[in-house]
Amino acid sequence: MSLSTAPASAASSPITQDEIFDSHLGGKLSVETTMPLDSKRALSIAYTPGVAQVSRAIAEDPSKHATHTWASRLVAVVSDGTAVLGLGDIGAAASLPVMEGKSALFREFGGLNSIPLVLDTTDVDEIVETLVRLRPSFGAVNLEDISAPRCFELEQRLIEALDCPVMHDDQHGTAVVVLAALTNAAKVTGRAFSDLRVVVAGAGAAGIAITEILLARGVADVILTDSRGTIHRDRDDLNQIKAHYAARTNGENVIGGMREALEGADAVIGVSSAKIAEEDLARMNDDAIVFALSNPDPEVMPDVAARYAAVVATGRSDFPNQINNVLAFPGIFRGALDSGARRITPAMKIAAAEAIAALVEDKLSAGFIVPSPLDPRVAEAVARAVAEVAANDPDA
Amino acid sequence: MSLSTAPASAASSPITQDEIFDSHLGGKLSVETTMPLDSKRALSIAYTPGVAQVSRAIAEDPSKHATHTWASRLVAVVSDGTAVLGLGDIGAAASLPVMEGKSALFREFGGLNSIPLVLDTTDVDEIVETLVRLRPSFGAVNLEDISAPRCFELEQRLIEALDCPVMHDDQHGTAVVVLAALTNAAKVTGRAFSDLRVVVAGAGAAGIAITEILLARGVADVILTDSRGTIHRDRDDLNQIKAHYAARTNGENVIGGMREALEGADAVIGVSSAKIAEEDLARMNDDAIVFALSNPDPEVMPDVAARYAAVVATGRSDFPNQINNVLAFPGIFRGALDSGARRITPAMKIAAAEAIAALVEDKLSAGFIVPSPLDPRVAEAVARAVAEVAANDPDA
Repeated sequence: MSLSTAPASAASSPITQDEIFDSHLGGKLSVETTMPLDSKRALSIAYTPGVAQVSRAIAEDPSKHATHTWASRLVAVVSDGTAVLGLGDIGAAASLPVMEGKSALFREFGGLNSIPLVLDTTDVDEIVETLVRLRPSFGAVNLEDISAPRCFELEQRLIEALDCPVMHDDQHGTAVVVLAALTNAAKVTGRAFSDLRVVVAGAGAAGIAITEILLARGVADVILTDSRGTIHRDRDDLNQIKAHYAARTNGENVIGGMREALEGADAVIGVSSAKIAEEDLARMNDDAIVFALSNPDPEVMPDVAARYAAVVATGRSDFPNQINNVLAFPGIFRGALDSGARRITPAMKIAAAEAIAALVEDKLSAGFIVPSPLDPRVAEAVARAVAEVAANDPDA
Repeated sequence: MSLSTAPASAASSPITQDEIFDSHLGGKLSVETTMPLDSKRALSIAYTPGVAQVSRAIAEDPSKHATHTWASRLVAVVSDGTAVLGLGDIGAAASLPVMEGKSALFREFGGLNSIPLVLDTTDVDEIVETLVRLRPSFGAVNLEDISAPRCFELEQRLIEALDCPVMHDDQHGTAVVVLAALTNAAKVTGRAFSDLRVVVAGAGAAGIAITEILLARGVADVILTDSRGTIHRDRDDLNQIKAHYAARTNGENVIGGMREALEGADAVIGVSSAKIAEEDLARMNDDAIVFALSNPDPEVMPDVAARYAAVVATGRSDFPNQINNVLAFPGIFRGALDSGARRITPAMKIAAAEAIAALVEDKLSAGFIVPSPLDPRVAEAVARAVAEVAANDPDA
């Protein structure tokens, strides 16, 4: 994922390499039994002959697969290892420690079972085909660390092919937490959310999803940028997805780089790791909002950003306002599974963002626009909000 | 699997259907974390940024995938649901409770992590292709409840395609425990093992594997039967695998049914669920050995068999001498993984059988030829024996 939890520097004493590697010896997950198998009676219930009755019942009534197996509460964390953290395309095997960590977060924060499935193929057709064949084994799919623009097609194809919740967390988990943080940042700076002029710096998985959710929430004035500058109608070098947003953003067709994009902007959301120059920040409106989310090195350091911004957020836990996906994905999947949703809809994602934002309303300040990733209330609140919306969402 | 653990009747009080279904609510497995993620420091080690160092290390040195992920100790329990217990082809979804039970047994008896992967395809090419793509996700494959003769080709194809242990337990787990039991039964009846005349009644997954391991252990006189009678050279209705054994068994080319097969036989091993008539048993040699392994209904009930046999075994826990795969597969996979073996070789299977047989040597009797499935010494002893052989087996 593009956002991170606490860097070593945040820990009481520096975390050594030995400490990290020792902690990962043998992996970070274990599969346990929910009933002891230490007696003939227990074996007769959990395994043969007792289990035959359960299998026969599912064969006769497929709906019992959801109630009498673990699959309907199991999230498959799926990656092909093509965009792992800041490491890029390191392959499926090397991505597994990250996916184990993700599964561990699903257990710790979402109370869900989760298994990593890392795939030795980067072919979208083959990944879809593989998960379709495995469909009876799980209840939801969290796509992780899959490179753009393949991730957009893959997620869409899987949503169409699988009758269960599918979400690419690098896109939507990030977008949900950003929406929550930006909602509160707008409040703190006394702005109407839909009037914000927002620059999204980076048109990868996170940048595209952030743009989409901002448009869905009624933000009319969004400018998306990539390594070549603002994305506008006159560019002939855009891939399909960028071209799609060129037509839906940048209404004034601003042409140029970060300098031109930030002219008169209220908020900038950096998800590109490209540095944002101080003189460009100076062109933003007063009381600007700066989210510099790349890890471990933000697009601009908070102390510099603070010279021009009233609210600053990063992906790091050693600064205020950490934008961390773990605030979103455990509760989103938990809520989707609790409600039996087949899809994670835009309304469910927005409900998740509103639930996250609401948790800090009472203590809201420029330095406290999102809860701590360790706040145990978050996943519960997000799950409840997502499940409530799902129950009344025909697309869910 | 074709053999079972204790039926309800073996339990102190009868097991009710409600008790069985309640026990399976939500499934029988859970994925837990091996380290708590309740502090920023823990998150920084288990997830970003710390985990990036582990992923980078694996990308640079693939051997670290085995030491620093859970995959190398993870057994995938794989089924397509085509031959589930006695239920037949009930499909992948309905087979999941059985596979969850199998994974639970791997944890309980083998101390291994295990996940069920049930596949919504019965195409051998597609199953092989799917597991090859998933290869970095697990460390071994236990094939389960896959119909014959597809199971023979599938296992062989996977052994060639995957650089990790692969075993179809319905074949080899059964064969190993039968070999252990027959070894001790020969001792009890004062016979030289290799001189036994053995009838294997049933030419499915278990019957073929039992025949193979008996031949490997030097039993020259084996007669295999199927629903049409003895398998002999003159039959023109044999599939490839049966034809292969027609050439290697039944040296006297005995033609006929169970009646002709049992004439002068020392031992019969029933793995077909077809009844064996009392008058046919009467044709066996004195002090015969009868293994009636079908569940829940043995080919012949033990009290009837005892009229002609000195040693009787079944698959049931409510009679003496239960032939139960759980005596073999947890230790076999544990030993294979402990030794880093890429293959589960015939020598490793034979070592497993010898280890199981040796555990009852001191109390050996006609009513006690194999340990109890709940005997905690079994998996440890089997794992040690299998690992020792694997260390010196060039094919392992």
